[in-house]
Amino acid sequence: MNKLAVVKIGGNVIEEPQALSMFLKDFSQMQGPKILVHGGGKKATAMAQQLGIPVQMVDGRRITDAQNLDIITMLYGGKINKNIVARLQALECNAMGLSGADANAIQAIKRPIGTIDYGYVGDVTEVNTSFFQLLIDHGVTPVCCAITHDRKGQLLNTNADTIAATVAVALSKHFQVSLWYCFEKQGVLEDIEDDHSVIENINPKKYALLKATHAIHSGMIPKMDNCFEALKKGVSKVKIGAPPMILGKTKHTTLTLADE
Amino acid sequence: MNKLAVVKIGGNVIEEPQALSMFLKDFSQMQGPKILVHGGGKKATAMAQQLGIPVQMVDGRRITDAQNLDIITMLYGGKINKNIVARLQALECNAMGLSGADANAIQAIKRPIGTIDYGYVGDVTEVNTSFFQLLIDHGVTPVCCAITHDRKGQLLNTNADTIAATVAVALSKHFQVSLWYCFEKQGVLEDIEDDHSVIENINPKKYALLKATHAIHSGMIPKMDNCFEALKKGVSKVKIGAPPMILGKTKHTTLTLADE
Repeated sequence: MNKLAVVKIGGNVIEEPQALSMFLKDFSQMQGPKILVHGGGKKATAMAQQLGIPVQMVDGRRITDAQNLDIITMLYGGKINKNIVARLQALECNAMGLSGADANAIQAIKRPIGTIDYGYVGDVTEVNTSFFQLLIDHGVTPVCCAITHDRKGQLLNTNADTIAATVAVALSKHFQVSLWYCFEKQGVLEDIEDDHSVIENINPKKYALLKATHAIHSGMIPKMDNCFEALKKGVSKVKIGAPPMILGKTKHTTLTLADE
Repeated sequence: MNKLAVVKIGGNVIEEPQALSMFLKDFSQMQGPKILVHGGGKKATAMAQQLGIPVQMVDGRRITDAQNLDIITMLYGGKINKNIVARLQALECNAMGLSGADANAIQAIKRPIGTIDYGYVGDVTEVNTSFFQLLIDHGVTPVCCAITHDRKGQLLNTNADTIAATVAVALSKHFQVSLWYCFEKQGVLEDIEDDHSVIENINPKKYALLKATHAIHSGMIPKMDNCFEALKKGVSKVKIGAPPMILGKTKHTTLTLADE
């Protein structure tokens, strides 16, 4: 089975021009087939403010009304995605931007209204693996923004972490997939105050122990639960750390289902 | 040689939601391989005003500074392109959005500064025909926005008419290409005041005559010169008219190099 890397970059890599430049250079040098998934960080909120459009948050989660969906589509699907693609092209990486609507790459359903109406938010239902495979087979690097569609004409805002995990799981039928979450820390830390306390390997047993002893910051738990879920569904390893880890430049955390 | 239709839609089809809906329905029903090229009409100017960004025009042509390029990238590459793609997907047309940067589809150079500095405006230098062919061979309908790149990391604003003509010419090596310009009139008119005076066929001889007798509105001349140029470079026919012409619903003008 061929290898495939699915790399997700988050808020601060997108927000800081120098961090983005460094990441794109590293990413372009990463060997083998790869997919990039990006969110948009706080830029959407800033733009909504500039346009005088109210941003409604419930429990720290954005409510995506029609106007905010437009902003997300303009920023994530337009400005951020196209600039990343153009810059990767300049670095000899044959990048191609995608929303979930493009070639029906990632289909979703609008989240049903429960106690909260999240608005135009999508939960992924299907990944068009043959289309991703076609691109990869032809040396193209897909660059996915965090937008899906319902195949009824509606675009939907979708969490970029989830898109990365879902695409990685779907493609693990055809590839040996590694899933890389780049963020501002060097990895999962033993001590949140000490950036050098990176836990290099975590398996389910170690994870259970870390949770039992409250050694992991509570904010990491849902994220790590999703990572182990992806591993159970076929992803071969998950990496969490700062962007330079993708070239093996920095220590980072590797999550696997391995017994040892 | 297989047939291929390259269809360009302009300002008012993009600007009027109902006109766009009608067009997309017709376009989705157009048989055979096809490519859609769209501009963004006056929406970019409206958005610049909303954001308080000055729009500089010289001789009726927009100067594209960095801020206006961002707006164009957000609107044409993001909001307009992704919404068209999602709506075509709902109509069972397997659309995929592209800027020129995506998979290096359309490369350009920044227009050299002459008497006027147009800013970030691109003149097309190369079309990645093998990539278009790959998509078409797999039943994908490319939807191109009017943005190119210089392959040095810079996006460039490019005239949508020119993109349509250049893509049509480049692909005429592999396909029998028809090039369709949809606009607000039924075609080239004998009498600008009379919408029914459509000239159905124009060849170079007839065109010379129409120009000599001043029977064509002067605004049409550069557009038609470009059409005949595309025909000379390999496009098999050019169609000018209102959007429903693409399904043969309305009279329109056909330009060819035919002697009769």
